[in-house]
Amino acid sequence: MRTILIIGAGKSTSSLMRFLLGKSQNENFKLIIADKNAEVVQRMAKQHSPASALVLDIFNTEEREQAIQSVDLVISMLPARFHIEIAKDCVKYNKNMVTASYVSKEMEALSEEVKQKGLTFMNEIGVDPGIDHMSAMQVIDRIRSKGGKMLLFESFTGGLVAPESDDNLWNYKFTWNPRNVVVAGQGGAAEFIQEGQYKYIPYQRLFRRTEFLQIPKYGRFEGLANRNSLAYRSIYGLEDIPTLYRGTLRRVGFSKAWNVFVQLGMTDDTYTLQDTEQMSYRSFVNSFLPYSPTDSVELKLRLSLKIDQDDLIWDKLVELDLFNSKKKIGIKEATPAQALQKILEDKWTLKPEDKDMIVMYHKFGFELDGEKKQIDSTMVSLGEDQTYTAMAKTVGLPVGIAALKILNGEIKKPGVLRPIHPEVYNPILKALEGFDIRFEETEKEYKGYNPDQLS
Amino acid sequence: MRTILIIGAGKSTSSLMRFLLGKSQNENFKLIIADKNAEVVQRMAKQHSPASALVLDIFNTEEREQAIQSVDLVISMLPARFHIEIAKDCVKYNKNMVTASYVSKEMEALSEEVKQKGLTFMNEIGVDPGIDHMSAMQVIDRIRSKGGKMLLFESFTGGLVAPESDDNLWNYKFTWNPRNVVVAGQGGAAEFIQEGQYKYIPYQRLFRRTEFLQIPKYGRFEGLANRNSLAYRSIYGLEDIPTLYRGTLRRVGFSKAWNVFVQLGMTDDTYTLQDTEQMSYRSFVNSFLPYSPTDSVELKLRLSLKIDQDDLIWDKLVELDLFNSKKKIGIKEATPAQALQKILEDKWTLKPEDKDMIVMYHKFGFELDGEKKQIDSTMVSLGEDQTYTAMAKTVGLPVGIAALKILNGEIKKPGVLRPIHPEVYNPILKALEGFDIRFEETEKEYKGYNPDQLS
Repeated sequence: MRTILIIGAGKSTSSLMRFLLGKSQNENFKLIIADKNAEVVQRMAKQHSPASALVLDIFNTEEREQAIQSVDLVISMLPARFHIEIAKDCVKYNKNMVTASYVSKEMEALSEEVKQKGLTFMNEIGVDPGIDHMSAMQVIDRIRSKGGKMLLFESFTGGLVAPESDDNLWNYKFTWNPRNVVVAGQGGAAEFIQEGQYKYIPYQRLFRRTEFLQIPKYGRFEGLANRNSLAYRSIYGLEDIPTLYRGTLRRVGFSKAWNVFVQLGMTDDTYTLQDTEQMSYRSFVNSFLPYSPTDSVELKLRLSLKIDQDDLIWDKLVELDLFNSKKKIGIKEATPAQALQKILEDKWTLKPEDKDMIVMYHKFGFELDGEKKQIDSTMVSLGEDQTYTAMAKTVGLPVGIAALKILNGEIKKPGVLRPIHPEVYNPILKALEGFDIRFEETEKEYKGYNPDQLS
Repeated sequence: MRTILIIGAGKSTSSLMRFLLGKSQNENFKLIIADKNAEVVQRMAKQHSPASALVLDIFNTEEREQAIQSVDLVISMLPARFHIEIAKDCVKYNKNMVTASYVSKEMEALSEEVKQKGLTFMNEIGVDPGIDHMSAMQVIDRIRSKGGKMLLFESFTGGLVAPESDDNLWNYKFTWNPRNVVVAGQGGAAEFIQEGQYKYIPYQRLFRRTEFLQIPKYGRFEGLANRNSLAYRSIYGLEDIPTLYRGTLRRVGFSKAWNVFVQLGMTDDTYTLQDTEQMSYRSFVNSFLPYSPTDSVELKLRLSLKIDQDDLIWDKLVELDLFNSKKKIGIKEATPAQALQKILEDKWTLKPEDKDMIVMYHKFGFELDGEKKQIDSTMVSLGEDQTYTAMAKTVGLPVGIAALKILNGEIKKPGVLRPIHPEVYNPILKALEGFDIRFEETEKEYKGYNPDQLS
């Protein structure tokens, strides 16, 4: 009887457990779920019988090594910074490993040893990174295998609220870590390349430099640039591609309104405000506006950012209760970003019956047999409920599928890997289709950015 | 015969040398100027005969200690980060020391030892910090000695071009380190307090939150917030003051145009652009604008920042040759800030005959005998030429005066000091008047920020 150990009983783990348990009898393996929180792990194991629970403090070396050496494969669902200790034990005890996180420098450094030992450490096998890698590489490799030359790759992913649960003016709710949403885009300019020209967008312009995308049945979205597009040139083998652009999806109009927070300074997470425990939402807003005791906070904000009275941005701000003088931030020594997060969580937290949605959009421009063409490939995945969210499914399923295929020796490529190789992405994408995670492709003429060619 | 050692032959050193040499015969001391650059230090000594030149590498401990132990007082005109090594030697060999830089944590840490040895380490005795401390504390102490209660302290300083040399649309030229001008305001929100309310301005709004100030004979200026106003509460003993605001002065209209650079991301110094050696000024601008090959850089910029065709901002940008496709940045791996600095230096470098100007404006609001009053205190100092600039004079003279008074035992307060004590600022401000560095005061009714009280 083989054993898979899952470390970390977080949000994405439910879908992963459900998938693996569904396979455990036929495929003849046991499942152990480990977490430092006894209550959480026992509840999780109970919900997913017959998985067994293990209370595990990963900073206790003895406990950790004992847990790892007795199993056949380890899935780390911990926050990314904790993977490395697990990874070192997996090297030591010759265990395969799976994570949904970006390959860190420390993980990369294990690469040679992992390869020599014939182990597979599969990383970046969630949704983004994960499904984006696999679905993009499948199309890119298909184009190249026919002799095509890649001209353009644009890729956008968004974690959003499903249309049936979309009931606020922002068309947005938190479907993953709210803090990451509030500080998204900070820490450096977005850099990408379009038809050979490098472009840079600083944080203060990021939310004003969107582009629109249309998905049949789901309508329009807006894409805003991620910071790290150019890193994908080497990962995908697209060193000479003239256009490479990666981004995040929101519903149209989100970014223009979010820019109000950016401009006022409300998303800053680098310093603490004074007296935030007793600070009202209204005072929070006022602290970023000029001092002028005879003018209202509303008027000062409108004037500062030149928001007309009939601009929909205004209704979005009012909907958040931003000018409420009774509601308190209620956090000691909060940064602006923490205070803003508190305000947003009042309104943007998923209700028990709410469903989320993952949307992915790739554009591939290429030249084949003297003709320029473009393939647009889209994927929409809807959540079932608050436990089996689209986020949990699109992260947990590829992790689970990869783990099982590694356990069964169907994937045996050794090394510290991303799922960018056909022997990895083909079977996993195929299996994901069984869970209705599938891409729709349309092929059309490649028009690039030259509006003279636009129909 | 006593000896003063000046380490660092930078821009501000000329005025300092001229002042000290003028006193050396009567006051019976010798002057040594030391720098690691032999050519610079020998030229400087020749210009300021009979000062003697010393080629000194401050990282050579033996050389440094030898230089310091043989003199009576050390003036460090080095960049601020280098003072600490000098300071430690001064402690070791019981020498007094003077710098124009902010007291660093390392310098502060020497405080007890310096005090115990009865030494005086005078810091922050240039213009800003320096003359600002002295002129402000003189008025604040005067108000408090009469039993007045401080209600407001606002203080602004600017290094600008003198009216007679003011020949560009920005009304600005570089009168000190251009790099510091380009990156000014970065690294955190400006924080201050107005009538008891804390206010925060993020970098992306800094240049749109100015206030106007008028100086007789010199016209209007605009003030923009410095980052660190609140630190002055403890330094000046103004812990409970309801309004405290420090800022930088520019001519009206500068900030609105500078904001174009901020918004585009041109002042970012945290990452390097691609291919900057061959990049034209026009390409530099274009790299921050959307890719759209059928639209001009000009049109894209106007649209992005909504600049009307008759807006004076536009003429300011054109004056800088920002859209020139022939001129090259010509720097390898330049950051946006370095590239922008190159463009600005073409136009904003002082010509040999140009004169600079230092402007300082303090507002003191206070309540005395049941009446609310305000004192406005202004100082304008004009440069003589490119060597004896207003900047060099207003930094070098207080340094020199302080050094001489310490040498003569007229200032003997021990410790790591700022010039905020009457026994320090009174004689120095008096001496500065002899060089036409003087403040004009006007007293009026205190109106605070309540427009209902405005006449």
